[in-house]
Amino acid sequence: MILVIDFTHIEKAYLRLRGIANTTPFMTSKALDGLVNSPVYLKCENLQRTGSFKFRGAYNALSLLKFEEKTNGVIAHSSGNHGQALALAARLFDTRCVVVMPSNSSKVKIKAVEGYGAEIVICGLDPKDRADTTEQLIAEKGYTLIHPYDNDNVIAGAGTAAYELIKQVKNLDYIFCPIGGGGLISGTSIAVKSLLPKAKIIGVEPKNANDAYTSFTTGKLVPNVSSDTIADGLRTSLSQKTFDIIRQNVNEIVLVSEEEIVEAMRFLWERMKLVVEPSGAVSLAGLLKGEVDLNKSKVGVILSGGNVDLENFFENYRSQIKN
Amino acid sequence: MILVIDFTHIEKAYLRLRGIANTTPFMTSKALDGLVNSPVYLKCENLQRTGSFKFRGAYNALSLLKFEEKTNGVIAHSSGNHGQALALAARLFDTRCVVVMPSNSSKVKIKAVEGYGAEIVICGLDPKDRADTTEQLIAEKGYTLIHPYDNDNVIAGAGTAAYELIKQVKNLDYIFCPIGGGGLISGTSIAVKSLLPKAKIIGVEPKNANDAYTSFTTGKLVPNVSSDTIADGLRTSLSQKTFDIIRQNVNEIVLVSEEEIVEAMRFLWERMKLVVEPSGAVSLAGLLKGEVDLNKSKVGVILSGGNVDLENFFENYRSQIKN
Repeated sequence: MILVIDFTHIEKAYLRLRGIANTTPFMTSKALDGLVNSPVYLKCENLQRTGSFKFRGAYNALSLLKFEEKTNGVIAHSSGNHGQALALAARLFDTRCVVVMPSNSSKVKIKAVEGYGAEIVICGLDPKDRADTTEQLIAEKGYTLIHPYDNDNVIAGAGTAAYELIKQVKNLDYIFCPIGGGGLISGTSIAVKSLLPKAKIIGVEPKNANDAYTSFTTGKLVPNVSSDTIADGLRTSLSQKTFDIIRQNVNEIVLVSEEEIVEAMRFLWERMKLVVEPSGAVSLAGLLKGEVDLNKSKVGVILSGGNVDLENFFENYRSQIKN
Repeated sequence: MILVIDFTHIEKAYLRLRGIANTTPFMTSKALDGLVNSPVYLKCENLQRTGSFKFRGAYNALSLLKFEEKTNGVIAHSSGNHGQALALAARLFDTRCVVVMPSNSSKVKIKAVEGYGAEIVICGLDPKDRADTTEQLIAEKGYTLIHPYDNDNVIAGAGTAAYELIKQVKNLDYIFCPIGGGGLISGTSIAVKSLLPKAKIIGVEPKNANDAYTSFTTGKLVPNVSSDTIADGLRTSLSQKTFDIIRQNVNEIVLVSEEEIVEAMRFLWERMKLVVEPSGAVSLAGLLKGEVDLNKSKVGVILSGGNVDLENFFENYRSQIKN
């Protein structure tokens, strides 16, 4: 198979994002290094603009649209990080942006997308309803769909996080990356395999949304059948495109339990003082599981995002106030 | 008044801490800069070892003890960050450490101090009981008391955070710093006034624990009478030493409400993805209050710590797990 996306696309995306996306820091922890007996570099995409790596892909995809496409506006159906990312990217290009969100989306998420200046169209809970609403708007208004991962330019943008990490820490022997729709690990694996051919790409997926694991081990693309994971960003299924890239580049997929995800998240919050969402902590959960023999070599971990609804947490805090 | 501590003490402390304390990063936010219409540099002492700036002072004080003092061991009465900091510093010097904690201390805090290898002695809730227990142990066992702020070497160590921030960002026109016992702002103000004589030092204190404000404005040292603030690290009173330094160096003290503290904390968690404790967010609350005319100049803010009890938060998360 010949890949359509190669490292040059990631390199170009990186140049486009300079001065626009945050150069996110990597963090280290003596405690973590001790736990896994290897030096670990956590790439903090929770500190990216809009709170997740998604901004990289959305901005890159938008920057490559034709003039008339930009003029007509863009659309996404996403209740999560891609919606926010596309909304901000569109604002930076002064492009109209519509985000189709299901009626049960949290107020915090709706407010965030609105805050970046996008229009919100509420649809039903059924995925088919979401797709129909989106298609109808595209047919009526001529919007361009920016898919959250089944899009070459989104994948190339996503790959700039790993590229940036390699620039920061020079060498890596392993990289742990979460798998949802497969866009992040596709971009990551292309960047890593190009720059560090010997490095191993480890995908990590929730046991409760294991379509990538099943597809990878059986060699046959299957959709996700469950959505019972707290890692709400990873409930999506691979596309043929991301499956092909994963099959070619990924060395291993590790499955993690819900408890393991919460434990990894808790380590990041309590010990490292980093707000990371469940989907963003999945990669660390895979590392902490200890299934991969690291042999004391250098490990990169992509913390993909940090958007958590803290409404209840702060409501609880506020209720403790004495005046 | 001639100060006993001057900049050379901070510089020497900085050299002692090199390679031992974390060089904590500073963080910036376009959203925050926009809110206050000035460039803001947040010094992330929540990312310091043991989760607060206290490690700097504890380690510096321990490193300056005489041989026999180190041999006999050290003691602190603290249910908070100083206890953890001293425990780790003592472990690094292979020195015995006893921390006297009230019987209502949270399990998380007890576990943290124990985790760093200190012995815990539980005392009653009455501050007098705590002091008596500590004095008795000192008399019996010959321990050296390391006071959390009424100690020159602790103050010099605390001042290295601001010194480091100035090294990182070169210039600053304002620095916002929380006030509890006054150790952090004493060290901070000495460092800043020495390196940047024109910079203004703004202390920030909870309205519900306003002893420093009252002392500063009346010129007469008064103790704290209330402990009804969620900023649990700032419930302590100034000492004569820290009051004298504050009177000499601090330009202004801003009071913040409990709501303002929670709002600042929420901004740090939600927007900047940083876990900062209420006491650590007080300085940002003072900045966001908008009382100080910044005139678009460069602002430093010390985020002093990030130790929050997340037990309930993660218990709630765990209860949502479906297997």
